Amino acid sequence: MAETELQPLSAPLFERLTVIGAGLIGSSIVRVAKQRALAREVIVTDRSPSVCDRVRQLGIADQVIDDPAAAVAGSDLVILCVPVGASAEVGAEITDALALGAIVSDVGSVKSAVVDALAPILPKHVHLIPAHPVAGTEYSGPDAGFSTLFGNRWCIVTPPEDADPQAVERVREFWKACGANVETMTPAHHDLVLAITSHVPHLIAYNIVGTAADLEEVTQSEVIKFSAGGFRDFTRIAASDPTMWRDIFLNNKEAVLEMLGRFNEDLAALQRMIRWGDGQGLFDLFTRTRAIRRSIIEQGQETIEPDFGRGGSNDP
Amino acid sequence: MAETELQPLSAPLFERLTVIGAGLIGSSIVRVAKQRALAREVIVTDRSPSVCDRVRQLGIADQVIDDPAAAVAGSDLVILCVPVGASAEVGAEITDALALGAIVSDVGSVKSAVVDALAPILPKHVHLIPAHPVAGTEYSGPDAGFSTLFGNRWCIVTPPEDADPQAVERVREFWKACGANVETMTPAHHDLVLAITSHVPHLIAYNIVGTAADLEEVTQSEVIKFSAGGFRDFTRIAASDPTMWRDIFLNNKEAVLEMLGRFNEDLAALQRMIRWGDGQGLFDLFTRTRAIRRSIIEQGQETIEPDFGRGGSNDP
Repeated sequence: MAETELQPLSAPLFERLTVIGAGLIGSSIVRVAKQRALAREVIVTDRSPSVCDRVRQLGIADQVIDDPAAAVAGSDLVILCVPVGASAEVGAEITDALALGAIVSDVGSVKSAVVDALAPILPKHVHLIPAHPVAGTEYSGPDAGFSTLFGNRWCIVTPPEDADPQAVERVREFWKACGANVETMTPAHHDLVLAITSHVPHLIAYNIVGTAADLEEVTQSEVIKFSAGGFRDFTRIAASDPTMWRDIFLNNKEAVLEMLGRFNEDLAALQRMIRWGDGQGLFDLFTRTRAIRRSIIEQGQETIEPDFGRGGSNDP
Repeated sequence: MAETELQPLSAPLFERLTVIGAGLIGSSIVRVAKQRALAREVIVTDRSPSVCDRVRQLGIADQVIDDPAAAVAGSDLVILCVPVGASAEVGAEITDALALGAIVSDVGSVKSAVVDALAPILPKHVHLIPAHPVAGTEYSGPDAGFSTLFGNRWCIVTPPEDADPQAVERVREFWKACGANVETMTPAHHDLVLAITSHVPHLIAYNIVGTAADLEEVTQSEVIKFSAGGFRDFTRIAASDPTMWRDIFLNNKEAVLEMLGRFNEDLAALQRMIRWGDGQGLFDLFTRTRAIRRSIIEQGQETIEPDFGRGGSNDP
């Protein structure tokens, strides 16, 4: 199954794919699209000339075109892989150049704001079908991408209410061909789900790393030395791209604040259990949380290897 | 270097080592002690008869003795590897059987409470030298241990003020021979350092997993499916042993509440930045936290592999 999925398709799904923004996600899409021949031609554009140069050096795309309007001309699939906050600006740059009936999609971690930014400015003759592949690492840039990034990960497609079902289906097929499992939901529900599974976890990870950096009684060198006790797990996600995450929080404000409110309520209860020595309450929560981990492993969203196979330095 | 460390010592450091409690840490000590011949004889005892049986089956120790007093008799090093809350009870069971001049140590994640529990009940003729190897995985029990668990991890030795320097040195040498880097500090400072590097991170991980489990608008199945967006990193540490962690929070109450207070203050500021759209403030914090991750990797406390090498299912 896994091996079959890596074979090139017998017929491409699209004639011409343009990926705007060649970061971790964009460059991974380019790689899997070329490897599996998902489009007859794969074009890359990026606002950074040095990123464009790097993609040329890597040789992962058929063409790299600096001007975004020229890059999307004639493409039947255009995927914006830029920070969510840049969607409107990029949309404005390409809107006049889009081919009749083209599908415009994206990969942003926030969906309502993307629909709100793009729907009003795109021409009526194109299909806006946003999507969000829930995959990534803590690295950024065109060198960080790899063709199997989406394998067995979920991609959430969030069509606006009046979307053309056939266009939705083509985007779903594209993501399946990238190796992903595909789910469809409304943009608003997506934003709520991601607030709890991704945005608030990142926020509290950034927060505790900041708290630790500011202590006076404990030195930064001590924090680093003894990070294997749990802290280091938070630093990985607190090392994610700052611009991308700034935009996520600014563009999913309501859902994040709602989920953060619940997190704070629960944390206050936990704090009270510690203050008053409620061992049974602590034990009950700590037992309950184990079951969720088990389900995540069972559903293939995590490796079972202890400590993710980090091991000690004496390992072979 | 790494390979040299795995060779048996030419002369053992101790005559007879007794490990009380054969969980992840205890059984790892037993394994490395046998492999490197750190003691002429390695004895295991555990309050659970089934754990004793399992250790016999695994054949990792020289002897398994069900009665703790009989197990420590004649040992010059006794290491308690039990939940911190069980220290006093285990101490009382062994106190009369301890050999003259024996060193009693432990591996608990909290140190002041262990000193307070053990110092009054141990005989004057033994040396209490607590220690804490900052290493672990999310798995528990005698099968979870492995001999390289402590390799390149830190072990913090926390002698009471009046400790015999020679006994301290012997415990330091033991941990170095287990592959660890060794640091000495007071029990109180240890508890503060671990509160921020381990205890509060675990607390907020347990908390967010609990929050996610209780939502009505987002189903548990959605949380599990889309956990790769960040949430799953928290479930690993929220899958740690519930008894052990209950005891840690009950026994390091003050330092945990102090650090949690700071975390909450910082989180309130972050929440405010989101509410008021302070993109620059968010960006500055998110940039600052990247540097700490880099240091942790540079100092060998974390792997550089993206996503800890989890990869997708299409990986070779």
